[in-house]
Amino acid sequence: MPIGSSILPALYPVTGFRLGVASAGIKQEGRKDLVIMTFDESSSVAATFTQNAFCAAPVQIAKQHLNHQSPQYFIVNTGNANAGTGQQGIDDALMVCQQLAAKTGVNSDAVLPFSTGVIGEPLPVAKIIDAIPVALDNLSEDNWAIAAEGIMTTDTRPKAASRKLKLDDDTKVTITGISKGAGMIKPNMATMLAYVATDAAIEGAVLNSLIADAVNHSFNRITVDGDTSTNDACILVATGTAGNDPVVTVEDDRYGVLQQALTELFVELAQAIIRDAEGVTKFISVDVNGGQSEQECLQVAYTIAESPLVKTALFASDPNWGRLLAAIGRAGISDFDVDSVSLFINDLLIAENGSRAASYTEEQGVQAMASEEVTIRVELARGSQQACVWTSDLSYDYVRINADYRT
Amino acid sequence: MPIGSSILPALYPVTGFRLGVASAGIKQEGRKDLVIMTFDESSSVAATFTQNAFCAAPVQIAKQHLNHQSPQYFIVNTGNANAGTGQQGIDDALMVCQQLAAKTGVNSDAVLPFSTGVIGEPLPVAKIIDAIPVALDNLSEDNWAIAAEGIMTTDTRPKAASRKLKLDDDTKVTITGISKGAGMIKPNMATMLAYVATDAAIEGAVLNSLIADAVNHSFNRITVDGDTSTNDACILVATGTAGNDPVVTVEDDRYGVLQQALTELFVELAQAIIRDAEGVTKFISVDVNGGQSEQECLQVAYTIAESPLVKTALFASDPNWGRLLAAIGRAGISDFDVDSVSLFINDLLIAENGSRAASYTEEQGVQAMASEEVTIRVELARGSQQACVWTSDLSYDYVRINADYRT
Repeated sequence: MPIGSSILPALYPVTGFRLGVASAGIKQEGRKDLVIMTFDESSSVAATFTQNAFCAAPVQIAKQHLNHQSPQYFIVNTGNANAGTGQQGIDDALMVCQQLAAKTGVNSDAVLPFSTGVIGEPLPVAKIIDAIPVALDNLSEDNWAIAAEGIMTTDTRPKAASRKLKLDDDTKVTITGISKGAGMIKPNMATMLAYVATDAAIEGAVLNSLIADAVNHSFNRITVDGDTSTNDACILVATGTAGNDPVVTVEDDRYGVLQQALTELFVELAQAIIRDAEGVTKFISVDVNGGQSEQECLQVAYTIAESPLVKTALFASDPNWGRLLAAIGRAGISDFDVDSVSLFINDLLIAENGSRAASYTEEQGVQAMASEEVTIRVELARGSQQACVWTSDLSYDYVRINADYRT
Repeated sequence: MPIGSSILPALYPVTGFRLGVASAGIKQEGRKDLVIMTFDESSSVAATFTQNAFCAAPVQIAKQHLNHQSPQYFIVNTGNANAGTGQQGIDDALMVCQQLAAKTGVNSDAVLPFSTGVIGEPLPVAKIIDAIPVALDNLSEDNWAIAAEGIMTTDTRPKAASRKLKLDDDTKVTITGISKGAGMIKPNMATMLAYVATDAAIEGAVLNSLIADAVNHSFNRITVDGDTSTNDACILVATGTAGNDPVVTVEDDRYGVLQQALTELFVELAQAIIRDAEGVTKFISVDVNGGQSEQECLQVAYTIAESPLVKTALFASDPNWGRLLAAIGRAGISDFDVDSVSLFINDLLIAENGSRAASYTEEQGVQAMASEEVTIRVELARGSQQACVWTSDLSYDYVRINADYRT
């Protein structure tokens, strides 16, 4: 069962950004599996993509098209990742772009394709093309919630977040976004799939800086299984319809306002992926403080977050701090004095000086672990840097879902 | 169910090396949980230990004692790792050494202590001391099999291997060893616990070279869960009782003979750990060829071997080559042309040129995966280096064992 509320928050429309949904019948008849998004070519668009060397055909095409011209359409299918499909996959992704372009009168380079689902099967191009008119027919600024459903694969619920904020004395702007993902989650400079739009006017280079920063502190801080997807993509569109003077430099005071709001919204979307991770029963924050560098804090945090022994102990609500110490010890930190480490679960001190804290009792530990949301806090006490990553536990259901996925 | 035969091979005694076993009742009454080994101080001893920064108290003491003088006794307890136990753990390990030394008339530095089991609980010193006389009473050269049982924790069966070989025209020598381990297995310059003895006469520096090489190609090539233990230790003793002229240099022709035999025996012991890995249903060899360096082959092999998505697909006997390509793609190889990669399961070509092989059918894939022993072969086609690692799948039982371990 996923963690936390499954009710979507209020999703404010972003003027100039419309979404349409259809059922192409890719894996299952009647399931919403095709989403089209559209916006004016005057919008700014910034994107980050997977760093997996086996990146999927649509990722390759989306990158090329972004380099050629301003996009006006996104087309997203689920049920098939069009990854590990060679030249045929490239041809198929291009064909989908061409068909959407022909129906809408834009250049096919103005279409960015996205796919998510099983790897290695040929893309069912005909089904997708047949469903394009349906999705175009229902394009609307009010379709964020239904689009969040339309991009789901093994997700059990849609993921979305929305904000209104005052950008300057004259302008209130909206930011709304959706994401998907439950497994093969360790985004690397990108995420599974996330689409965020704002009506603020933001120049392209500034938008690139905003997305890089927000992704780095959100999607790049989550892991379910350490497996980076072949299809990760995160897209940020600024339609400019709010009417503000465009933000054209990172020195602009409004940059900080946008940065904070976007990072918060990205974190909400990223955490929503963990709350719905495959087989999740606990939402875990791994908070590492007192490192000499952010990098070493991340190393320790990820070593804990990806340890199968830690993750199974979390599933069992077992305060097995020995496995935590073992994970910290193998994280590869140089010149590391293990006796200076303190370890907390939520605010309970568990271990210090390389062994169990004198004040700690197993009863307290079990109580701290019983919660659906658990924070593992590590104090390295060798510097002032910190990092936090979010992860899920490892349950029977994780094995079931991934042993059954293709059948 | 563990993989392969659970019948131990014939274990040849090593003249000058005796083993004794007792039940100290550490975790469970009546279980064999204490093993003592002894040999003459003229023997050569080489050891490798865990690289985990949180190394256990007995590991710290064993390293110190090895530096001080030639060991004559090993004492091993299961059921308690004496790790994460701070200064008390150090005092406890020393106390065990002192008590054994007092009863046998050796210096306490001549005793090396080893512990394996749950992390973070105080060592039950009194129980261990009470059981020492029993183990001393039954010291015998014929106790390898019973000692292999005595060092088990979550292991479901003992692990041992033995060889006789001709060292030179005049001398036949014996090598016999035991190992244990089923979880928290990703040895790093060491292994969970392994004890190997030979009657060959080998000088200390040469023995160090032999153990480093053999460990690097055996225990350092296995992973169950990527979790390096706090208590790993691998010990090689050469009693010199075979009567050969001592091997005093690695240039000696006999070095190659010993190196080959030891590496084979170490591989047999290391693979036995994987065959008995927690929740194992399949023994997996990940064989990566054609790399520019051994290091990049190992990176690819470990990324595959530790991917939860690959491991659950293996459990399901699902030839999910998309997950394999995704793992290869995120292994961090620089300047990597994914289209040159070929992927085989056993000898079946699955994928090439970045997509499914034209000749491949899903039926063939399912058939190849149905076996209890599966080889995943990756041809990188960018160099001449290779590496092989061995791993297990990820099953419901893996979760059960690790979610229940402390209860």
